[in-house]
Amino acid sequence: MSKPIAVLVAGSWGTALASVLAVNGHSVKLWTRSEEQAQDINYNRRNSRFLPDVELPEGLTATTSMEDAVRDAEAVVIVAPSAAMRDVAGQLQPLLRRETLLVHATKGFEAGTLKRMTEVLAAELPQTDPERLVVLSGPSHAEEVVLRRPTTIVVASQHLEAAEAAQDLFMNSYFRVYTNPDVVGVEIGGALKNIIALGAGLCDGLNFGDNAKAALLTRGLAEITRLGVAMGANPLTFLGLAGIGDLVVTCTSRHSRNWRAGSLLAQGLSLDEVLKQMGMVVEGVKTTAAAWRLAGKYGVSMPIAEQLHAVLFEGKAAHAASLDLMGRVRTHEIEEQALASLFSGGEHGRL
Amino acid sequence: MSKPIAVLVAGSWGTALASVLAVNGHSVKLWTRSEEQAQDINYNRRNSRFLPDVELPEGLTATTSMEDAVRDAEAVVIVAPSAAMRDVAGQLQPLLRRETLLVHATKGFEAGTLKRMTEVLAAELPQTDPERLVVLSGPSHAEEVVLRRPTTIVVASQHLEAAEAAQDLFMNSYFRVYTNPDVVGVEIGGALKNIIALGAGLCDGLNFGDNAKAALLTRGLAEITRLGVAMGANPLTFLGLAGIGDLVVTCTSRHSRNWRAGSLLAQGLSLDEVLKQMGMVVEGVKTTAAAWRLAGKYGVSMPIAEQLHAVLFEGKAAHAASLDLMGRVRTHEIEEQALASLFSGGEHGRL
Repeated sequence: MSKPIAVLVAGSWGTALASVLAVNGHSVKLWTRSEEQAQDINYNRRNSRFLPDVELPEGLTATTSMEDAVRDAEAVVIVAPSAAMRDVAGQLQPLLRRETLLVHATKGFEAGTLKRMTEVLAAELPQTDPERLVVLSGPSHAEEVVLRRPTTIVVASQHLEAAEAAQDLFMNSYFRVYTNPDVVGVEIGGALKNIIALGAGLCDGLNFGDNAKAALLTRGLAEITRLGVAMGANPLTFLGLAGIGDLVVTCTSRHSRNWRAGSLLAQGLSLDEVLKQMGMVVEGVKTTAAAWRLAGKYGVSMPIAEQLHAVLFEGKAAHAASLDLMGRVRTHEIEEQALASLFSGGEHGRL
Repeated sequence: MSKPIAVLVAGSWGTALASVLAVNGHSVKLWTRSEEQAQDINYNRRNSRFLPDVELPEGLTATTSMEDAVRDAEAVVIVAPSAAMRDVAGQLQPLLRRETLLVHATKGFEAGTLKRMTEVLAAELPQTDPERLVVLSGPSHAEEVVLRRPTTIVVASQHLEAAEAAQDLFMNSYFRVYTNPDVVGVEIGGALKNIIALGAGLCDGLNFGDNAKAALLTRGLAEITRLGVAMGANPLTFLGLAGIGDLVVTCTSRHSRNWRAGSLLAQGLSLDEVLKQMGMVVEGVKTTAAAWRLAGKYGVSMPIAEQLHAVLFEGKAAHAASLDLMGRVRTHEIEEQALASLFSGGEHGRL
């Protein structure tokens, strides 16, 4: 059944999600601040800046008026960069009706406050029914989604009804949507994998090989899970699509900005030089700073985030940081006693 | 401290492990049935058949006499193909002393009996102290290990002392060894990842993309864990190096035989044609048959193994199998209730 839906911000992922919704027969308005981009989408059926090679489906139109985009929408999908989330939500505030379904697909924490994106949305949109708030995440290159390659993602909400409403909007034969009640875990998994992707780029830049990268992913998942659990997440979420799934796709893709930033750091460039050379946002850099602070706040050991923090912000050489990671004195693999003991003191808690 | 050590079978992984031991100062005898290979190793310092590009370290010699290899050995490392394990162990039986440390690094089940490798060893070597039996596994391309790239692996034994003895032999600055008490989990993780690697090759051969492959890995890890737990493994092992670590390195490497076999199947070749074209053992094929039988025996749902079984042995088209996997009616990600409920009925058991 066709529904009017607004998608805010026409980046690559916003455009890909808008395309899925349009393919599903919904009437989609994609909001952008750029008049040029809106015209490109409406007249050329393309988003030349972010997804140049794909013709966009029927039923998708762009507008520079957020009011126009949101007016009749039964659902609003927000895919702003994490740094812009509060601003976009503030603009949306006077336009949004209480009963509208609100889905966000942004990965990261707010830099200053360390808040998760649903926390920012709840703060800026006090009229929103918290039962109508959903996060969408999972292993999903936008470039593959617009080509209708098989993709699986997760929608999480505190309220199953809202998650299922989002599932109904997005689900089709190539875009499989699973619900999960763990909003905190899904948001943390999506944000923190960017740190490990930075590390993977660094590892590849140092020519360490696939064995080392697999070790990095494995240990990375463990420290993401530790922080997530300390922040209230369900550890099983990190075994799922928004955890290990997203981590794998991000760390093994050479298209990832985070991976590329890491590989440039490995060549000895400073953070400023890397960011200048890339000329775009690298979410993993800000997320490393956030994770480092969160690890301190929650008293959680995150050795990978710690070493990356030293490389990014304290001038430590990438090679020295890697050696420090490898050389950690550790003998028993299941030193994850903190993790094991979460599992309620059963048989496996005793390890 | 230098110790005499025997390594049985000079394949790529056996040779790589022998090299690590020799680099660590041990006196290593590498057993092979091939006189030509023994001479190549002893006179050219190369294993031209399996690792042609590397000069082997001092302290490593080859022999075609198992008696000569094993006579003074304080430890025997067995790295035979799973199909040859019982035969090699049978030959070793009259030569082995009770107190010798026995480490195996073979991934797979015995085809007919579905036994794990330590079960085969215990049956064929009744004189061996079960406390001296260790399995070594983890994400480790042999080609990278001989180049001394950073690698992390796990040694598991029912008895910490044996695991620590193996750790002492192998550990060095580029080869990090962790102990784990879960022999069953480490063996199952190492064997079953080859199935998912076959599936990953199939997925790539069908040009499904990285999103789909990440979903396959995530769901694959879940079904490996389900079977492992039913067979007595600790679920946390599958979150570690012998689980997710080995899965990632195998599924993302195009050097993997299993991956290649899968990609050929995707092109429509029959299993016979694939095996003929590859001209070597593809462990994942036999492991798929074993896993399919084990899933039935233990009453565990393994949809990926089931579909691969249909492709390999029942003539199902690869594309149809993939669609059946994607199209499974499932809505809630944490349908892993079986898994969740393992965690002792605590907060997370209620999901």
